[in-house]
Amino acid sequence: MSSHWLERIRWNEAGLLPVIAQDADSGRVLMLAWMNREALTATVTRGEAVYWSRSRQQLWHKGETSGHVQKIKSIRLDCDHDALLLEVEQVQGIACHTGRQSCFFQRLDDHTWQTVDPVLRNPDEMYGL
Amino acid sequence: MSSHWLERIRWNEAGLLPVIAQDADSGRVLMLAWMNREALTATVTRGEAVYWSRSRQQLWHKGETSGHVQKIKSIRLDCDHDALLLEVEQVQGIACHTGRQSCFFQRLDDHTWQTVDPVLRNPDEMYGL
Repeated sequence: MSSHWLERIRWNEAGLLPVIAQDADSGRVLMLAWMNREALTATVTRGEAVYWSRSRQQLWHKGETSGHVQKIKSIRLDCDHDALLLEVEQVQGIACHTGRQSCFFQRLDDHTWQTVDPVLRNPDEMYGL
Repeated sequence: MSSHWLERIRWNEAGLLPVIAQDADSGRVLMLAWMNREALTATVTRGEAVYWSRSRQQLWHKGETSGHVQKIKSIRLDCDHDALLLEVEQVQGIACHTGRQSCFFQRLDDHTWQTVDPVLRNPDEMYGL
């Protein structure tokens, strides 16, 4: 398999780039995470999103524990070659570790962050606690 | 005006955070750019997207030259407090400096990046060249 396509990407000084995941059905932006070269290669090979966890410093197969896997529908690169957009099928419709559809659930209203999206699944249940 | 809401944000080591702009009408993800505290404050005050240009190291009022301003419909913060999602009205429907609707116009097909979106406006005309 050619890896020529990987050469077009401009990784940052830490070897990462930001990746946006968008729900293919609803169009909702689900989350922003990071990938390195290994994570992107794994994502393409598996057909499911594999990110780089900056906090844990390891590959992170999204949904491995919770079951909330992201199946890849398309991968897009931006004009600067330093950001990716994934169109995904979000299994169970929940991307956030808080049990919400999207990680972007706090909206700025009159200079205050308001939580505007419901919890769809109990996080304790998601992670088998 | 209280700036308490700014304290919730976790800026990176360079004082920046990634910001996704999404078209309020089409749901299309338009671009990913960066803001510092000053840019975000200016965005909220103006009601139009003001980013931090990492290449030029200065505030960048998106659309100032091209006219392709982004009017803010909502600002959302993610669960980790280190990424923003703007819902915008994209003036003239063109976000990319190449004259395309979205900066994410290259799609990975069979290990090759394919340009899949049309140029809607000549960049020379956009920037008065």
